[in-house]
Amino acid sequence: MHERSEIARLLRLEGDARIDFLDSKALAGNPLGDPATRPVVVYLPPGYDDGGSRRYPVLYVLHGYTGDAAALVSARPWETNVLQWADRLVREERMPPALIVLVDGFTRLGGSQYVDSIHNGAYATYTVRDVVGHVDANYRTISAEGGRAVLGKSSGGFGAMHLVLEHPGIFAAFASHSGDSYFRYAHFPAFATVHRALEAHDFDLGAFVSAFEAKHKRNMTEYTTMEMIAYTAAYSPKGASAFDLDLPFDRATGELRDDVFARWLAFDPAERVAGCQAELSRLRLRYLDCGRRDEYNLDIGARVIAQRIRDLGLEVRHEEFDDDHRNVGYRYAISLPALAAVLDLK
Amino acid sequence: MHERSEIARLLRLEGDARIDFLDSKALAGNPLGDPATRPVVVYLPPGYDDGGSRRYPVLYVLHGYTGDAAALVSARPWETNVLQWADRLVREERMPPALIVLVDGFTRLGGSQYVDSIHNGAYATYTVRDVVGHVDANYRTISAEGGRAVLGKSSGGFGAMHLVLEHPGIFAAFASHSGDSYFRYAHFPAFATVHRALEAHDFDLGAFVSAFEAKHKRNMTEYTTMEMIAYTAAYSPKGASAFDLDLPFDRATGELRDDVFARWLAFDPAERVAGCQAELSRLRLRYLDCGRRDEYNLDIGARVIAQRIRDLGLEVRHEEFDDDHRNVGYRYAISLPALAAVLDLK
Amino acid sequence: MHERSEIARLLRLEGDARIDFLDSKALAGNPLGDPATRPVVVYLPPGYDDGGSRRYPVLYVLHGYTGDAAALVSARPWETNVLQWADRLVREERMPPALIVLVDGFTRLGGSQYVDSIHNGAYATYTVRDVVGHVDANYRTISAEGGRAVLGKSSGGFGAMHLVLEHPGIFAAFASHSGDSYFRYAHFPAFATVHRALEAHDFDLGAFVSAFEAKHKRNMTEYTTMEMIAYTAAYSPKGASAFDLDLPFDRATGELRDDVFARWLAFDPAERVAGCQAELSRLRLRYLDCGRRDEYNLDIGARVIAQRIRDLGLEVRHEEFDDDHRNVGYRYAISLPALAAVLDLK
Amino acid sequence: MHERSEIARLLRLEGDARIDFLDSKALAGNPLGDPATRPVVVYLPPGYDDGGSRRYPVLYVLHGYTGDAAALVSARPWETNVLQWADRLVREERMPPALIVLVDGFTRLGGSQYVDSIHNGAYATYTVRDVVGHVDANYRTISAEGGRAVLGKSSGGFGAMHLVLEHPGIFAAFASHSGDSYFRYAHFPAFATVHRALEAHDFDLGAFVSAFEAKHKRNMTEYTTMEMIAYTAAYSPKGASAFDLDLPFDRATGELRDDVFARWLAFDPAERVAGCQAELSRLRLRYLDCGRRDEYNLDIGARVIAQRIRDLGLEVRHEEFDDDHRNVGYRYAISLPALAAVLDLK
Repeated sequence: MHERSEIARLLRLEGDARIDFLDSKALAGNPLGDPATRPVVVYLPPGYDDGGSRRYPVLYVLHGYTGDAAALVSARPWETNVLQWADRLVREERMPPALIVLVDGFTRLGGSQYVDSIHNGAYATYTVRDVVGHVDANYRTISAEGGRAVLGKSSGGFGAMHLVLEHPGIFAAFASHSGDSYFRYAHFPAFATVHRALEAHDFDLGAFVSAFEAKHKRNMTEYTTMEMIAYTAAYSPKGASAFDLDLPFDRATGELRDDVFARWLAFDPAERVAGCQAELSRLRLRYLDCGRRDEYNLDIGARVIAQRIRDLGLEVRHEEFDDDHRNVGYRYAISLPALAAVLDLK
Repeated sequence: MHERSEIARLLRLEGDARIDFLDSKALAGNPLGDPATRPVVVYLPPGYDDGGSRRYPVLYVLHGYTGDAAALVSARPWETNVLQWADRLVREERMPPALIVLVDGFTRLGGSQYVDSIHNGAYATYTVRDVVGHVDANYRTISAEGGRAVLGKSSGGFGAMHLVLEHPGIFAAFASHSGDSYFRYAHFPAFATVHRALEAHDFDLGAFVSAFEAKHKRNMTEYTTMEMIAYTAAYSPKGASAFDLDLPFDRATGELRDDVFARWLAFDPAERVAGCQAELSRLRLRYLDCGRRDEYNLDIGARVIAQRIRDLGLEVRHEEFDDDHRNVGYRYAISLPALAAVLDLK
Repeated sequence: MHERSEIARLLRLEGDARIDFLDSKALAGNPLGDPATRPVVVYLPPGYDDGGSRRYPVLYVLHGYTGDAAALVSARPWETNVLQWADRLVREERMPPALIVLVDGFTRLGGSQYVDSIHNGAYATYTVRDVVGHVDANYRTISAEGGRAVLGKSSGGFGAMHLVLEHPGIFAAFASHSGDSYFRYAHFPAFATVHRALEAHDFDLGAFVSAFEAKHKRNMTEYTTMEMIAYTAAYSPKGASAFDLDLPFDRATGELRDDVFARWLAFDPAERVAGCQAELSRLRLRYLDCGRRDEYNLDIGARVIAQRIRDLGLEVRHEEFDDDHRNVGYRYAISLPALAAVLDLK
Repeated sequence: MHERSEIARLLRLEGDARIDFLDSKALAGNPLGDPATRPVVVYLPPGYDDGGSRRYPVLYVLHGYTGDAAALVSARPWETNVLQWADRLVREERMPPALIVLVDGFTRLGGSQYVDSIHNGAYATYTVRDVVGHVDANYRTISAEGGRAVLGKSSGGFGAMHLVLEHPGIFAAFASHSGDSYFRYAHFPAFATVHRALEAHDFDLGAFVSAFEAKHKRNMTEYTTMEMIAYTAAYSPKGASAFDLDLPFDRATGELRDDVFARWLAFDPAERVAGCQAELSRLRLRYLDCGRRDEYNLDIGARVIAQRIRDLGLEVRHEEFDDDHRNVGYRYAISLPALAAVLDLK
């Protein structure tokens, strides 16, 4: 009999939580130099037995920008993290027992957006092939599309939408909490901020990133700048070496480069869902939410996506909250049961 | 001999300041119901004599959004208003004696942007015909293009650029301090804010405005909403009755209405200067500045305009400051002398 | 027949507004070098006639810190200044016709608190003797205690309370809107801020003030520092030459100097009203209000004062608003009529 | 041979980290109902061997208000937590190998301040007797005063100072990073905020706390209110049942209750160190630091404490940073080696 892990006890879980380390082929030799060995955190519900015969559906959780697996595991008094939510929901029988898997999509730039990028590495492939493969190989999962869902907040919500559109057949449902979308409202003002910050570094992105890493503390402008570099690395990389990127704005004036921004828009769920009838129609649940005071205006994106999906004749669950972009973990209490409810239970 | 006015004494001016009231034909019967009788504040430099033979150049000052003539006259300890700047610069012989005229472009919505609008009234015509006509008729001016310049801050800077492009031959020079431009960066995030605020009023603009007016105090969201209604009234009016406007975003989702926003862009100096070679080339001075921390990203717009003007083979004076959008009156110490220097002195 | 002044017309008053310049004996030769000639703004209600026989009560308005007479006269769209309020209230017959006098209590440090200080000059004497004397000598006033009231916001509210306690027999009533009081809550945190700022200037107050004046713009810390220097100059001056002051905190550590702060507390209305039975009992109205979200915690002070006055067996009118410290001019609509109502009407 | 724990691997430690659960006698049956079983996190440096003969000094780390052991263990990208700092410093040979123990001092109110309170429970006793006893009993420690130091940030810094003053002979050194002190500057403005918040709950503290706990998100005022309740529970409890507390301000007005606040001041290190010559002189290191922009003005407190200790003829290490109160973990790189350097190494 396996004893519950230290993390499970520290988080006061009734179930268990294990931390595996996966060697990802997809990430091997990535140009940015991030580790190809990644933690995979797996929550096991009470009663899970390695040697048993029962099989479980799996919910894959994607963290947001500046997050990683360790951050998802982290706990704060008065707050409930995603593992604690899952454990509580299962314990209170508000959802059927399921595995929860925390995917680590961090990069040196703060996040991969879970897309395959010639600059960052193949993070979409890593997620749908390497992480899913590891979990199916090592745990008692329902190893089929009908037994998997994907969800996340912010950039994790974007990632969930990206993966179901880009890799149909892996997940049967998604939930996006305040997911990145409608980039014109979400990112335009930041471009001006970042233009100023990078001009002060003569647009030497490597120098900016090194200076960022060396600081004890960073201010909001520095975080925003790093964030836009990360998105550039995901959406408009130029070559397969570190910092070889096409910024979406002109270096001299800061104005938009329409040709580069068009590459960003090709990733924008609000722009692309209209063309993804096939990928969307096979899903059992499409769940979107956002706070109506979202600082990045992602509520507008969620509305656009919901309307476009309905225009395709498909159903969507779309919720709005009187809330902003931060600390929206309480919505796991909605999404986790909703996703688990549509998955196969054996 | 005319005694110096009370306002001149309160502001401790060496020159004088008069407040006329002009009945504007251009504003008569405007749909929004704003007064057609408007204050015109005229600063007269020391030595100005109604009965003398000397004639003076005139600098027309346009206030920003939420300003009016009374606000331009207002004084604050430790601050120097535009009349006080002019008086000091003349007194210290840093600029030649000139008249300064404060134009009142206020509307019930907070500002006209100095454009002719079927919804608001003909504020461009009012400025270049009625105000200029009144001043030339009543003061000892050099009543020709070579004797006039126009300047302003924020929406007043926009107005200055708009009037030289739209009404060539009136002014020989302009100065735009942090003038509205490059609307995509300046206005996009506000559209989301305003969408939320107006949704709460069922998109009844009249109800919103009435509620705004009835309040003792308004918050930032309310000011931003009023501001966007004002810009809509200037750039994309629908009809000639109050609140008959085409909002630049979709009512259901908040996403951009590209067709309406195209009407806004037709007013955007950053978008239109490239096509205004003739209007720009006749000017003796084109002056632009902005703080490099402008909250509305107008520094990007100023850079774009400056580059586009240079692309036409014309000179532009473009300055940047380590500053934000507020309280930039100290720049009058640059623009007033620079403008006066290129005007005819008779 | 006197024509209405330009200011009256600019502010769209039905009554008139005159700006006199008074040579104050009390301020002559003040150590700080501020002008002894001061503007006195006098509002005259509709129907006021210099040659008539009717006499009017007078309400003396004291501006807050960083204000002066010109600032009180200043107008902003959508806002109503104190002259506009008075004019409107008289016009709508919500208060009897009265004169409104705006007192200028500005100093180089941003304000005098209307107290006699060996460092700043005798601003209490200036107000109750020179300004009141000038108004009684030049206007058709009811020149007796029963015909005068005093009011103000913030430091002006403090001034109103100070003058009725310090100079009984001049005013028959006072109103304090968010007046300075309960200094322990209001000023303690600022002491730390100011200690840091002045340490950076080696506690050379003159150098700080000169640097402040030379700047185009000042940040919040700089304003707070100037404010505390001004209060020190009012409450704990050391000698009669500029910047000879006893700061209320220790230069080495920043901790409180209890002996100096005791001098401040001697001015604190919350601390002193309990000992002012005689001065308070002769008043016809004692009016206090404050926003319950006051950034300086002056709502606590107002409560303390109100309770202490009631403990003396006297009545007090005490109102609270769901509001902060800024833009509370709407309360003039309460205080002006309430004060006018208790004054002699001849 | 013990395998490294999952947490050690997730945090990428070279050493190990164990999480024990201690049944504290001191906390058994505490009135507030908090658990008496507490996690004790123990970091073991590389080379630590349960069966070996080497013994190690121990640094006890106290978290701040709203922290707990799980929060101290938590990791964020680009940040270094205290375990990661210790591991790195040992690995780089910047400090000798030592055990690091994370003490859990959380209560339902957000924190115990590590003091014995009839209301909360005996958290000082719990720390110095139960936690220290557990560690000495289960790990290869130098189990004497000369082998122990205590440190912390914010309320943890306060706790470190409190424990060396209150329980001399346990620790040979302390470090306080931005520790709570000089309560007059630190807490006075908050009293006004909390008075307003609690008035809205009719001063029913239990109702406030229950409402707080039930919320998904809390605003700054709510956090500040909870914080002041927690300090009241530590410094001025009234009885041994939940929420039986003496608030330091008057319920009617919000003004200070000097008698109650005197009980707070009895805990204030800035007020009490002058009387603790004996307790302070036996210490081998007294380390204090603070950011000079501390939002709670704790830099003033650190200066006062440092001066008072020097006034006793004792040395103190006192450092200031151009920094605020948040994210000051980088200072562990100073304090951990400095503390370890003065401890016995066997």
